[in-house]
Amino acid sequence: HRTLYVGARMPPVRQSHRHHRRHRAVFRRGNGMGLCLLPPGSPSQRVQVILRTQEDEEHVPRHLFSELDEICVKEGPDAEWKETARWLKFEEDVEDGGERWSKPYVGTLSLHSLSELRSCISKGTVLLDICANSMEEIADMVLAQQEQSTEFDEHRRAQVREVLLRKHHHQNEKTNNLLPVVCSFADVSERQSDLHLLYKPGEGFCRALAPLDLSGQRRSVPVLSYAFRARFALANLAAECAAERCGLCFWGNWLKITCRAQAELSFLKKIPNGAEASNVLVGELDFLHQPIVAFVRLSPAVLLSGMTEVPIPTRFLFVLLGPEGKAHQYHEIGRSMATIMTDEEKRKMPGALDDSASHSTLEKHSGPELQRTGRLFGGLTLDVKRKAPWFWSDFRDGLSLQCLASFLFLYCACMSPVITFGGLLGEATDGHISAMESLLGASMAGVVYSLFAGQPLTILGSTGPVLVFEKILYKFCKEYTLSYLSLRACVGLWTAFLCIVLVATDASCLVGYVTRFTEEAFASLICIIFIYEALEKLSHLRDTYPVHMHSKLDFLTSYYCKCEAPTHPSNETLRFWESNKINVSGIAWENLTVTECRYLHGEFQGPACGRDGPYTPDVFFWCCILFFATFALSSFLKKFKTSRYFPTRVRSAVSDFAVFLTIVIMVLLDFVVGIPSPKLHVPHALPGTTVGWFINPIGPNPWWTVLAALIPALLCTILIFMDQQISAVIVNRKEHKLKKGCGYHLDLFMVAVMLGVCSVMGLPWFVAATVLSITHVNSLKVESDCSAPGEQPKFLGIREQRVTGLLIFVLMGCSVFFTSVLKFIPMPVLYGVFLYMGVSSLRGIQFFDRLKLFLMPAKHQPDFIYLRHVPLRKVHFFTVIQLICLVLLWTIKVSRAAIIFPMMVLALVFVRKAMDFCFSKRELSFLDDLMPERRKKLDDARNEAGEEEGVRLAGSSWLDISLGLLDCPFLLQLVWKRWGKISTRSK
Amino acid sequence: HRTLYVGARMPPVRQSHRHHRRHRAVFRRGNGMGLCLLPPGSPSQRVQVILRTQEDEEHVPRHLFSELDEICVKEGPDAEWKETARWLKFEEDVEDGGERWSKPYVGTLSLHSLSELRSCISKGTVLLDICANSMEEIADMVLAQQEQSTEFDEHRRAQVREVLLRKHHHQNEKTNNLLPVVCSFADVSERQSDLHLLYKPGEGFCRALAPLDLSGQRRSVPVLSYAFRARFALANLAAECAAERCGLCFWGNWLKITCRAQAELSFLKKIPNGAEASNVLVGELDFLHQPIVAFVRLSPAVLLSGMTEVPIPTRFLFVLLGPEGKAHQYHEIGRSMATIMTDEEKRKMPGALDDSASHSTLEKHSGPELQRTGRLFGGLTLDVKRKAPWFWSDFRDGLSLQCLASFLFLYCACMSPVITFGGLLGEATDGHISAMESLLGASMAGVVYSLFAGQPLTILGSTGPVLVFEKILYKFCKEYTLSYLSLRACVGLWTAFLCIVLVATDASCLVGYVTRFTEEAFASLICIIFIYEALEKLSHLRDTYPVHMHSKLDFLTSYYCKCEAPTHPSNETLRFWESNKINVSGIAWENLTVTECRYLHGEFQGPACGRDGPYTPDVFFWCCILFFATFALSSFLKKFKTSRYFPTRVRSAVSDFAVFLTIVIMVLLDFVVGIPSPKLHVPHALPGTTVGWFINPIGPNPWWTVLAALIPALLCTILIFMDQQISAVIVNRKEHKLKKGCGYHLDLFMVAVMLGVCSVMGLPWFVAATVLSITHVNSLKVESDCSAPGEQPKFLGIREQRVTGLLIFVLMGCSVFFTSVLKFIPMPVLYGVFLYMGVSSLRGIQFFDRLKLFLMPAKHQPDFIYLRHVPLRKVHFFTVIQLICLVLLWTIKVSRAAIIFPMMVLALVFVRKAMDFCFSKRELSFLDDLMPERRKKLDDARNEAGEEEGVRLAGSSWLDISLGLLDCPFLLQLVWKRWGKISTRSK
Repeated sequence: HRTLYVGARMPPVRQSHRHHRRHRAVFRRGNGMGLCLLPPGSPSQRVQVILRTQEDEEHVPRHLFSELDEICVKEGPDAEWKETARWLKFEEDVEDGGERWSKPYVGTLSLHSLSELRSCISKGTVLLDICANSMEEIADMVLAQQEQSTEFDEHRRAQVREVLLRKHHHQNEKTNNLLPVVCSFADVSERQSDLHLLYKPGEGFCRALAPLDLSGQRRSVPVLSYAFRARFALANLAAECAAERCGLCFWGNWLKITCRAQAELSFLKKIPNGAEASNVLVGELDFLHQPIVAFVRLSPAVLLSGMTEVPIPTRFLFVLLGPEGKAHQYHEIGRSMATIMTDEEKRKMPGALDDSASHSTLEKHSGPELQRTGRLFGGLTLDVKRKAPWFWSDFRDGLSLQCLASFLFLYCACMSPVITFGGLLGEATDGHISAMESLLGASMAGVVYSLFAGQPLTILGSTGPVLVFEKILYKFCKEYTLSYLSLRACVGLWTAFLCIVLVATDASCLVGYVTRFTEEAFASLICIIFIYEALEKLSHLRDTYPVHMHSKLDFLTSYYCKCEAPTHPSNETLRFWESNKINVSGIAWENLTVTECRYLHGEFQGPACGRDGPYTPDVFFWCCILFFATFALSSFLKKFKTSRYFPTRVRSAVSDFAVFLTIVIMVLLDFVVGIPSPKLHVPHALPGTTVGWFINPIGPNPWWTVLAALIPALLCTILIFMDQQISAVIVNRKEHKLKKGCGYHLDLFMVAVMLGVCSVMGLPWFVAATVLSITHVNSLKVESDCSAPGEQPKFLGIREQRVTGLLIFVLMGCSVFFTSVLKFIPMPVLYGVFLYMGVSSLRGIQFFDRLKLFLMPAKHQPDFIYLRHVPLRKVHFFTVIQLICLVLLWTIKVSRAAIIFPMMVLALVFVRKAMDFCFSKRELSFLDDLMPERRKKLDDARNEAGEEEGVRLAGSSWLDISLGLLDCPFLLQLVWKRWGKISTRSK
Repeated sequence: HRTLYVGARMPPVRQSHRHHRRHRAVFRRGNGMGLCLLPPGSPSQRVQVILRTQEDEEHVPRHLFSELDEICVKEGPDAEWKETARWLKFEEDVEDGGERWSKPYVGTLSLHSLSELRSCISKGTVLLDICANSMEEIADMVLAQQEQSTEFDEHRRAQVREVLLRKHHHQNEKTNNLLPVVCSFADVSERQSDLHLLYKPGEGFCRALAPLDLSGQRRSVPVLSYAFRARFALANLAAECAAERCGLCFWGNWLKITCRAQAELSFLKKIPNGAEASNVLVGELDFLHQPIVAFVRLSPAVLLSGMTEVPIPTRFLFVLLGPEGKAHQYHEIGRSMATIMTDEEKRKMPGALDDSASHSTLEKHSGPELQRTGRLFGGLTLDVKRKAPWFWSDFRDGLSLQCLASFLFLYCACMSPVITFGGLLGEATDGHISAMESLLGASMAGVVYSLFAGQPLTILGSTGPVLVFEKILYKFCKEYTLSYLSLRACVGLWTAFLCIVLVATDASCLVGYVTRFTEEAFASLICIIFIYEALEKLSHLRDTYPVHMHSKLDFLTSYYCKCEAPTHPSNETLRFWESNKINVSGIAWENLTVTECRYLHGEFQGPACGRDGPYTPDVFFWCCILFFATFALSSFLKKFKTSRYFPTRVRSAVSDFAVFLTIVIMVLLDFVVGIPSPKLHVPHALPGTTVGWFINPIGPNPWWTVLAALIPALLCTILIFMDQQISAVIVNRKEHKLKKGCGYHLDLFMVAVMLGVCSVMGLPWFVAATVLSITHVNSLKVESDCSAPGEQPKFLGIREQRVTGLLIFVLMGCSVFFTSVLKFIPMPVLYGVFLYMGVSSLRGIQFFDRLKLFLMPAKHQPDFIYLRHVPLRKVHFFTVIQLICLVLLWTIKVSRAAIIFPMMVLALVFVRKAMDFCFSKRELSFLDDLMPERRKKLDDARNEAGEEEGVRLAGSSWLDISLGLLDCPFLLQLVWKRWGKISTRSK
């Protein structure tokens, strides 16, 4: 005695109860055959009939938003349907007293209420593919299916109909009575025009809104679609007013409407495009003796006015009205229904879950970019072809606040190393190349690289190995009295040539052999160098600003440090006096300042004197405070994004600008306190004034030096190649989800060209700087802001563009013009930023995660994928090998053999190869994997899907088993919702 | 065609298949009636028969440990049962590759596998209350129930039996091969003697182990029970060897056994006392065509050798052996069974979940301690009676490392305020009462209070309001030229008298009117004062150690600050010189130290001079570094307990000693750096030398002052009463789960007595110090270390004892003797500790949680119980009122009206009363609740139980519904396990 209506291709047994005009669409879709009663048979047979129906636009799986509304008629004639829970990926309940939504959570269903739901569906009315434009029609259809009995007569029927049509009260309507103030009139008038466009009184909703709905679905830019949805909301409300046939109502409710739209908008943002609603209505009716149960699937989905919290079309409707006294039971059944409807099936991509597929293959850096073409400059050509279409978008995509934040941060971060390295280079080369040249060279190379490189996210900079190389070259020249700048130009030109040869032969393909092992060892080393140098520089300040440690405060009155004539002037001092024609006896030594005293080789005398100068009060400790405060503040501000305070926008802005804000705050603090801490010093003089703009590669050197330069150039080439490509590999990591592709060949080509140019102009060489590049990439991370309540925002990718890089280097070139501002930046603040960059770059490195495991008891170890599949001792063994490599690299780097450092990095690749003997392929696939977290997700998915996989393996049809066991079309709605997938499967 | 055996009181229809001697126990238990086949009938009828059986020792709900073992016979004849998952509250899986246990998690079961499990049970064999001593017997019984068929003949039966008896391989056996080294021989020999005691070859396990098991259950101290379990483990293993009839085996496997016992012990600690095992065995047997399913309940529970991972007796056994190819399905069915068996039912205390009960009542401080007795000193007498039995345990319970840590921390924390307040008092009273008196008084009062007070966790100290009162009194005396010490003695004696009157009249009962609102406002104020003072003291150091802000480093050579004769000596100076007979012209001003110069009223001259003395280099900044480093380090070390690193013991030790460690580290750092930072200065001179030990209350004052002193004494009494009782209320909070009760009357009595004594001896007054008391309590928190894997350790209570308090004050009295050590402690470190104490005391205050809500968007707000039930604007309103009160209190405290401060605290009680008009009783019950978190738990429990509540309300029997719906005794095992509860319910 139950009926199942379904729009399937079956001979009509009974005519549909109504033949209104608005049903025509359905009949056409159903191939001319109307609604029909399925022949009696097993549920599984019935479902198979449904499945045999052809796929069409309507029957595709969609995202569902479920809403549970409850009514309690006991409350009197004013009782409304009250929203008590909603589902969008997770369940949220209305906390009635608190007038707010609960935390989103994964709902648990009791077996008992699931069983009751099953029996509800098996005994109740199921109407599939019904076309109805309003709740009235649906109510009529549902009630027409109820059995006529003495208890359920026309009067009862009318009562139930009236209840079904009562108003729906949503949670957001209650809370947003305070909002009107927020809604500005500008907003209102803007939307008014929209509304007039849309609102066509007298027409059905289906037709008025259907085209908009479709256009909304196709739109990929979510913002536009929000606007459309806001219009829906308004049209919906305006129509409500129209329904009340009240002319003034429209304008009277204007503010209320707009505010509600505002509140809806914020939740609408969370709902995926094209989602449909599933409304669950449950309630106790005191006059009922038997429950009324109905499950309705609408086709097409219809925007039922006022029914759903947000204006999205309703696809499913489940009604359960029963006698009094079982409200909680009904609530649980409703919850079960809504949860089942929203629950996503896990059976995606059965192929991807194959055990062998994910275990055995060892991922490598690969892809079209790294395939050897076999043609001369083949890779370069492909790179250019691949990157050229993105060129304009690289500038368009740079228009974002995040890019501004990134640019400001990295400008500050890049300035200091360039100037410091420049200073060191100046020291190392006795002023042949100085901070000024460094600034100019970096700016020039950076601008060109940012504009034309394959991966503009990489940041060029001076790197340690290059500095070491230059030092050694300079020493050699000095020993053999050769012209340093000329020889350097030769070496540079050769190196550039060799690099271009490497480009021509697609040598960058060798990058494929750089696995995570090598990458991480290199990156760790660079990070440690950063941290080490930041701390070392701070401690160096103690030499510059000596502290009087054990001073006695009571004797402060007798403390002084005066300049005096040296008691026993050394020969050097005497020579200096003579050569500078200084009349020693004429000097008033006591009145000299520190600088003058040092210049005149005076001696410092007094209890407040350090080793070679007066003790400097306060400066060193103030520097320490600045240094650690910078580190702490920038770390804190960066983490602010995940704090609970303030709206998301504020938090992400603060997080983006974290380092810049820190620098500004620290500069202000330093200025207010007024302790003379060391400041960033930008040189004034323009370069080229001393040696001219162009360096002759031969110059004063013998001609054969040009050829001999090939030997150091070979070394230099390895160095440049390794430095550049490993940094590029790290930037191009798959984890970063880059969309515009990379260009290893093009990158190397640009570096080579600029290397040649810089060599000839006597400027330092620049190559990709690892830590700066990682920091740059990290500062440009994009996360989804549209996610279901309770869902973590997803990492979408990196804002790939050329603007930040370009601006950083353009501004660096211009830095000479605003030294007045830059000279307020204290050096310890910049050192603090270095420390922050080093530490934050370490965070993503798996090697450090594994190092931490040594200190953790097994039960506290995080759930890393490799720990699931590889025994702990093997993981430790792997880490120890990596650690030894790192220590060796460090030793080489600080020893005199520093020049062979790049070759040692190369050696890492071979160490990694040798490890194939100690570890199984499977273990390495986990330990040396490029995407460990993706693997973990796959693993989890496999575990979850396991049960169903098992069923499939067992050889019996899933449908038969589930339906046979449950003995009723319990899973009908699931089947129907996920129709596309299931039918593919049963083929 | 299925059989259900159950030991119920029914006429025997069919005789049991075997009549072995070992079954006798069961027959006796079953009232002489043997195993019987239930008559055919509905499952619900059958279950009701089972329920009608009387309750006895065996049929009580117990904790269950479930283990899932799987076998795959395809692997060959050596295939063993492999443990793949275990359940102890949560599910843990064996991660095969990683050779470790997964994170504990809440298992999700698929509806499908639950259905399959149901059909397994309905079609399989169910054997209840079987007595068997070994797996062999169980296997025989199970196989005897299988239908004989052509496919399942005797050969197959033997094969299945052999599979069932195969060895079990547990996860811990694999990983602990590395352990032998750890097991010391001392351990081994100790256990050997135990084993000989226990191991009686030839006897059945049931009898040998049953008495031990029972004794283990009764024992409340878990440590002892572990020892017993370790013996079980060994007996078990020894028996295994004996079973192999190998004389040497026992000694040969000695080390292995001990090591395994070691590993088992660590997991055994997690299993609650009296828990039993439920073993689930599933597997594919390639020769089977039909699955064999059996569910066995053993009575009594039996320790099956080698079956379970840990040596606990097995109560339930579920066997599922099926044909090949469905391994995953079997696994899921096994998981479902194990999960259902371990899952705890939610239907506890239906009364406690009553909505009205938990909503309407507003909890107050109450209990027997605060009931008015109506007799003179009635409350005091009861307090003494209540506390006396605990007196000795108060000393025994103090023997713990945590107490040592707490004592060291609080000694350091208490020293500084006592000395500082003493110094301030000395300043305020022109040296009449000084740091020395303060130290002595605190020590004396503290020792007496710790020994005899009702709540020895409270720490006495000098408090701000008392200091203010003494200052005002001193000023008054000076104005009217009265003897301060005498008048003070009068006031003190009156106050003591009034306090004793309050004790006699049980006035402490008024504490009942102090709600969370008042408590928190007061506690917040005191915490803020602590934080404010810590920062203020630090900034005061800038006056003592002036910093030369805008010094020019280049002119350091010309910086000096010398002492000079004052150019225009003031009259005061001239008078000073004259009275001290100083020959001004004879002084070598230039050579004077800072102190000498100040003494002789010299002037400081030079570019390195501040306002009144030379600039002090480095000291202030070094103090800042010490201050913030202390705060950061102590916070970090305290949090170390929840970090992932190092074993639990190390972490909790570090966390307990956090502040003491910090002080030690900072003292060392300060010593190494050598900057002359200000140090803790303990006075040398003994008190009493100037004014004698006893103060005459009249002394030089007129006689009527003795009576007039009553007026200030009244004020002072309010002050002492409020200060003391609110601190006591905070310490005695229900959240602290104190077990030894409190004693408000006794506390006040002790304070009053010591107040009198101190007054007469001219020592300062001491009363409970809020922040120190909170810190003391927090440092003595005890958490459970025995919990199921994945479960959070539970807060068990506070280590209530008198030892820490006693030691703190004894050592404080002795402090004069080791000034040589104390003088190394820098003051900024102590200020840092103050800051830490203030901030950490704030953390537990709900008021601050609510303040933070102002900055949080609704969706990020934590799930506080009051937010669930009270609208946000009401919560904010409540917070604002509290904030206004706090600001007013603060204003009064710093204004000249400071003396009325305690009355304002009293006024808070009335403000709270007035709030009854703005808030509903229900809202206040949430906002002003004493135990918000317990309420939340109740709330959650109610939600979870809601579904079943609903069923009960519906008026139909729960059993009927569930069994009727599921149509098979699916819940049999649940019913059986939770037998006691369900039967109570159905009565």
